[in-house]
Amino acid sequence: MIIDCHGHYTTEPKDLHRFRKDQTEAVKNKTALPPRSGLKMSDDEIRASIEGAQLKLQRERGTDLTIFSPRASGMGHHIGDFAVSQEWTQICNDLIHRVCTLFPKNFIGVCQLPQTQGQAPTSSIKELERCVKELGFVGCNLNPDPSGGYFNAPPLTDKWWYPFYEKMVELDVPAMIHVSGCCNPAQHTTGSYYLNADTMAFMQLILSDLFKDFPTLKLIIPHGGGAVPFHWGRFRGIALDNKRPELAQIMGQNVFFDTCVYHQPGIDLLTKVVPVDNILFASEMVGAVKGIDPKTGNYFDDTRRYVDNAPALSAADKQKIFEGNALKVYPRLKDAMAKAKVHA
Amino acid sequence: MIIDCHGHYTTEPKDLHRFRKDQTEAVKNKTALPPRSGLKMSDDEIRASIEGAQLKLQRERGTDLTIFSPRASGMGHHIGDFAVSQEWTQICNDLIHRVCTLFPKNFIGVCQLPQTQGQAPTSSIKELERCVKELGFVGCNLNPDPSGGYFNAPPLTDKWWYPFYEKMVELDVPAMIHVSGCCNPAQHTTGSYYLNADTMAFMQLILSDLFKDFPTLKLIIPHGGGAVPFHWGRFRGIALDNKRPELAQIMGQNVFFDTCVYHQPGIDLLTKVVPVDNILFASEMVGAVKGIDPKTGNYFDDTRRYVDNAPALSAADKQKIFEGNALKVYPRLKDAMAKAKVHA
Repeated sequence: MIIDCHGHYTTEPKDLHRFRKDQTEAVKNKTALPPRSGLKMSDDEIRASIEGAQLKLQRERGTDLTIFSPRASGMGHHIGDFAVSQEWTQICNDLIHRVCTLFPKNFIGVCQLPQTQGQAPTSSIKELERCVKELGFVGCNLNPDPSGGYFNAPPLTDKWWYPFYEKMVELDVPAMIHVSGCCNPAQHTTGSYYLNADTMAFMQLILSDLFKDFPTLKLIIPHGGGAVPFHWGRFRGIALDNKRPELAQIMGQNVFFDTCVYHQPGIDLLTKVVPVDNILFASEMVGAVKGIDPKTGNYFDDTRRYVDNAPALSAADKQKIFEGNALKVYPRLKDAMAKAKVHA
Repeated sequence: MIIDCHGHYTTEPKDLHRFRKDQTEAVKNKTALPPRSGLKMSDDEIRASIEGAQLKLQRERGTDLTIFSPRASGMGHHIGDFAVSQEWTQICNDLIHRVCTLFPKNFIGVCQLPQTQGQAPTSSIKELERCVKELGFVGCNLNPDPSGGYFNAPPLTDKWWYPFYEKMVELDVPAMIHVSGCCNPAQHTTGSYYLNADTMAFMQLILSDLFKDFPTLKLIIPHGGGAVPFHWGRFRGIALDNKRPELAQIMGQNVFFDTCVYHQPGIDLLTKVVPVDNILFASEMVGAVKGIDPKTGNYFDDTRRYVDNAPALSAADKQKIFEGNALKVYPRLKDAMAKAKVHA
C-alpha cells in the first residue's frame, strides 16, 4: 500500500476562490465580510475537481491514499484578524472533510489552523480539536511564519508554541511544518519560501531540547527537509560543534522528512543520508510543479518513480517509506483507515 | 593549481572585535563612536592569526590561493547608519589588504560593502571602486538582506540594485551573494540563514531578465547554491512552467555555485546536476563548521577531498572547478596573480 502524506486540495471549486477574494477585499477595505452561507460548492463539483486531478493521478501512479489538507499557499495567515482566519480555516477544513467523505478510501484529512500573524497558536487549539474529534482528521499543518514571508515569529522551540504542542500530544496527532503563500516579494512561494521555512525549522529543532519537553511530539518537515539532506555534513558538523548528538539521533521518533524532491539524484541523496525510518512518501500533487520533465517524459512530481528506483533502498525500506512510517507518524491513521474500510 | 574562491578572515586580531563591540555599543547608546586611530593590530599579530589557521590548512589540504574577504557574519549591515557601516567596512577591507600584502601568493582580496538596511546599494559604489582600483581586490560580497534576517530588501532583480551592477560590470568584478550575521532569532546564521539567502537569490534570478540587462554580470551563489541542487527538479520544473529555459542555460556565463557542501554525497549531487562550468571550488574555511567528522576522521570543510572523489568529474572537469572557472569568473584574478608572481 502506498500512502502519500502530503497532498493539498489545489483544484477547489471556483466559488471558494470567489469567497476568499471577497473576504480579503473586505479586510483590506474594512467593509462587510461575505457571508459563509453564500458559498456554492456542490458535491458534483467537488467530485469532478478530484476525479480529474488527484484521483486520476493516484490511479496513474499506483498510489492508494493521500493525507489531504487545504491548499497550503491559500492559508494566508497574514490576512485579517483571528475571526477572519478562523472563518476561512473552518470553511477550508469542512471542504476537506467533504472530499474525504466523498472518497473515503482515497483521502484522509489533515487540517489547516486559524493562525494569525502576531498571535500565539493557543488560539488554534479549538479548531485542531474540532477537526480531529469531529471530522476524523489525523494531523495538522502548522505554519512557522504566519507573517507570510518575514520569518518574524518565535522559533518553533519557543514556549510560545507549547500549549499547542500539548494539545497535539494529547490528541496524538503530528504536524507538518508548512508555511503559506508568500507576500514578501524577495521570496517565491513554492520556489524559495517553502524550502527556506523547512531549513529554518530543522535548524531550530536540532539545537533545542524541545523533544525532551515533548518526547512524543511528531513534526514532519516537508519538501525533503528543505536544504538539509544536501547539506547533511554542514548540519551534522554544526550539531556536533554544539555538543549535540548525531542528526539521526536528534530526529529519532520526532522529526520526519517527506519525499517531495522532484528528481532522481535528489531522492537518491535523501535516501542515502537520512535514516529510512524518518522518511515518509509524498508527492505534493497537484502542487508546486505541474509539468512533465522533458528529459524523462514523466511528471516532475511523480515521486513514486524516484523512490522505486533509489539504489540505497531495500524492499523493506520502501515498505517503510511508502506505508509503515506513515502509520507510526500518524497514530490515528490506522483507525481512520479501518473506519473507511481501507486495508493496509 | 587550486583556487579557493570563498574564504573569510575569521581569525582576526582581538582589537578588531573590541573596536566593533565599542562601535556597536555606541550606536545603541547614542554615545561617541570609538576612534579608528585607536585600533591596535600589528603585522606580527596578523601573520600569526593567518599562519596558524588559513595558511596551515591551505598547506595541509594542498590548496594554493584563497580569494579572501572579511568575516561574512561580521559585516552587520543592520547595525547603525551609512557612516558607521562605511567606517567598519573600510577597516575590514584595509585589514584584508594587509593580509594580502603579507601573504601575496596565498590570498587575493574581495571586499565587504558599506551597505545599510533600507538604503540602496548605490552608496556602496565608492568603496567597491576604492577596493578594486586602490587595493587590487577582484570582487565583492553583496548582501541581499541588509536587515540581518527578515528578507525585506527588494529582490536582486529590482532596479534598486542596478547602479551597483553597472559599476561591477564597468570594473569587471563579480559579486558573491552573501548575507551577514542573523539578528532574527528564528534563523541560525550559518545553519539556515546563509542557505536560505542562497536559495532565495537563485529563485529571484531564474524568473528574471536581469542578465538581458547585464549580459556580463557575474554572481556567485555560495554554499553550493543553498537548497538548489537538491531540488534541481523542482527549480527546473518551476522555470519550465514559467516558460523559462533550462536552468543550465539561465546560469550560463552569469550564475555560479561554490563547493561549500560538507559531505561526499552532497558534492556528488552538486557535480552531477549542475553544469561543471558553473561550479567554483571553495571551502569557506575557517568558517561555519570547524570540527572533524567522526565518521571519516577528516575536517567537514575539507571540500577538496570531496571534489577529488566525485565520480561524475573527469580530470578536465576538476581543473575547471579548481582553477579554470575562477579565472573566468574573476577576470581581474589573472593580473592580480601575475602581480603577486603566482603562476597558475
